Amino acid sequence: MSLQFRVLKEDKSSRARLGELTIGEKTIPTPVFMPVGTAGTVKAMTPLELKKTGASLILANTYHLSIRPGEKLIEKAGGLHKFMGWDGLILTDSGGFQVFSLPKIKVADEGVSFQYEVDGRAVSLTPERVIEIQKALGSNIIMPLDECVPYPCEYDRAKKAVKRTTAWAKRCKKAHVAKEELQTLFGIIQGSTYPDLRKQSTDSLLEIGFDGYAVGGMSVGEGLEMTKETLEETIPFIPPQYPRYLMGVGLPQDIIFSVERGIDMFDCVIPTRYARSATVFTNRGKIRLTHKDYKRDFYPIEPNCHCYTCQNFTRAYMRHLFSANEILGQMLASIHNLHFYQQLMSQIRQAILEHRFLPFKKEFLKNYLASLDTN
Amino acid sequence: MSLQFRVLKEDKSSRARLGELTIGEKTIPTPVFMPVGTAGTVKAMTPLELKKTGASLILANTYHLSIRPGEKLIEKAGGLHKFMGWDGLILTDSGGFQVFSLPKIKVADEGVSFQYEVDGRAVSLTPERVIEIQKALGSNIIMPLDECVPYPCEYDRAKKAVKRTTAWAKRCKKAHVAKEELQTLFGIIQGSTYPDLRKQSTDSLLEIGFDGYAVGGMSVGEGLEMTKETLEETIPFIPPQYPRYLMGVGLPQDIIFSVERGIDMFDCVIPTRYARSATVFTNRGKIRLTHKDYKRDFYPIEPNCHCYTCQNFTRAYMRHLFSANEILGQMLASIHNLHFYQQLMSQIRQAILEHRFLPFKKEFLKNYLASLDTN
Repeated sequence: MSLQFRVLKEDKSSRARLGELTIGEKTIPTPVFMPVGTAGTVKAMTPLELKKTGASLILANTYHLSIRPGEKLIEKAGGLHKFMGWDGLILTDSGGFQVFSLPKIKVADEGVSFQYEVDGRAVSLTPERVIEIQKALGSNIIMPLDECVPYPCEYDRAKKAVKRTTAWAKRCKKAHVAKEELQTLFGIIQGSTYPDLRKQSTDSLLEIGFDGYAVGGMSVGEGLEMTKETLEETIPFIPPQYPRYLMGVGLPQDIIFSVERGIDMFDCVIPTRYARSATVFTNRGKIRLTHKDYKRDFYPIEPNCHCYTCQNFTRAYMRHLFSANEILGQMLASIHNLHFYQQLMSQIRQAILEHRFLPFKKEFLKNYLASLDTN
Repeated sequence: MSLQFRVLKEDKSSRARLGELTIGEKTIPTPVFMPVGTAGTVKAMTPLELKKTGASLILANTYHLSIRPGEKLIEKAGGLHKFMGWDGLILTDSGGFQVFSLPKIKVADEGVSFQYEVDGRAVSLTPERVIEIQKALGSNIIMPLDECVPYPCEYDRAKKAVKRTTAWAKRCKKAHVAKEELQTLFGIIQGSTYPDLRKQSTDSLLEIGFDGYAVGGMSVGEGLEMTKETLEETIPFIPPQYPRYLMGVGLPQDIIFSVERGIDMFDCVIPTRYARSATVFTNRGKIRLTHKDYKRDFYPIEPNCHCYTCQNFTRAYMRHLFSANEILGQMLASIHNLHFYQQLMSQIRQAILEHRFLPFKKEFLKNYLASLDTN
């Protein structure tokens, strides 16, 4: 097995756990947050700055990269790590989540076909093809093609999607001949918000056998309460020795609630996307730097933060950069937000280690959700 | 005097010279190139990366900053250095060059009034006002308000502009009470392409007395040959003990030709502006990274370059970033171009030191201008 996962500590009052995930010579602590680098770059960040935030594992997008610049080019460049100058680990999602949100997608048992959102060209993806692409990219964690249904979704449709996802997972497993030690394959659990379908999906995937299990089809508008419920009805079916990944989630509070329910891995565009539109995270909630309140605010975004941005620049300067449409505003806000997320994960891990996850959660959320976030 | 300038070495075969310019505790070598940070940020660069390129002195724009975010706000923030997190030296141009290119400018003996290009608001600048703004910003090198004429320009108009520039220079000198040790004032020589007017302008400014002299009104479409001629007809009138600054110039070849004619200081938006549209400099000329030739080019922009970009990324990756409209493309290209310019200045200084400026010039231009630059 090319992935080792060890649970180091389990919280006594919740499902939260501290672990470590090893692929090749790289070991990273969990719970872990993966910054998103869809096109082979975490937007507005150099790999050097990204590393400094504490990121150890990032996510890139299989289908985007397969079209532009093409996985063959990346393979020729020596793989995605070398191409993008990232010496940490890389997980690639298959693109299932993205393509199922496209308007003209056609789904068949063989695979999916759709128009590429950038230039309208016809693209098709099959389970075998997504594995082939990810092999060429050299991803450390490979995700299979899955059928992602919208929310809300009728029972029968969700059931059919589970069936297809299972069939595709089997084909992916078969295509993934794990010769390469540094490439591991996860399964993706579907089933919408139906507990019996989630269980059925989990059981089928366990039978096929993967190195880790992702909860897919979330973050599609179901809301936090439904996410919590679904996790509570899914996680117990995944044996504890496997890493559990909640795809596409989320805000700081979502991450905390999900860790509490047993999730080890997260990815989300929020910290970088928000940063580029001037919204930054603080321990007292998120703030919008373009707000007039910050015009003469000569404090850093977060006074106790050790990131490059907070150590060197004020909110007033950040506001000026965003008003003047200066790229540096997006760069500095991205540095801060990713640092904030990595700090959050680090605090979560420390809290689990010291048997105080629930008190940490209470304290963090008390501060974080206290402000009305009206900016 | 708050500025010390020492000529360390003079080239025997040209007017090129190696010097050092000291303001307060900071000493920088000349010839020097100043990256442009109009709005209080050198576009797409963190101050940390900027420092790493070798930049020691940057240029910011008085009139832009006075309007947004306002010099009072910057003063309250502790000055421009602190506001933008730059611990090197700062020169601010008065905005004369910029405002004289606006369509609705009104020029009177008192000063200029115009509409701010961003939001159309009415703004007026007087010699006293530009000094007041630059004092508040805390600029190390302050530029006076001057009347910049277009090219070509009739003799009478150029003559009137010289007269007004002289009168304004006097008022600037009066307004600049040099209590502050770290702030020094330069004069700007006008006179279009008329040798007698350039001499007249230089003589009048020398009589008023400044710490350095800038050749203004260049880079307005007169072309390289005319720039060379004007420099040859102007520089000899400036006594050698003063630093000489050629405003707004230029391409690598322009810098070399101007150093040859005795210029010590340069600023130009070219390296950063070109970078943002994917044009980068190499020792064999500039190249456009979006060109199809680079799709599978797995070499760095410049194989011998030590910048972060060339040490970590290929032309193929850079091309991918620009095709995907990723900000990182602009960031990495800016790092490389500014590094290239600072390297050029460093090579120029080394060549002067070793009495081989003309051979260096010949060698550099032979390589640099060899390609047809068709990309």
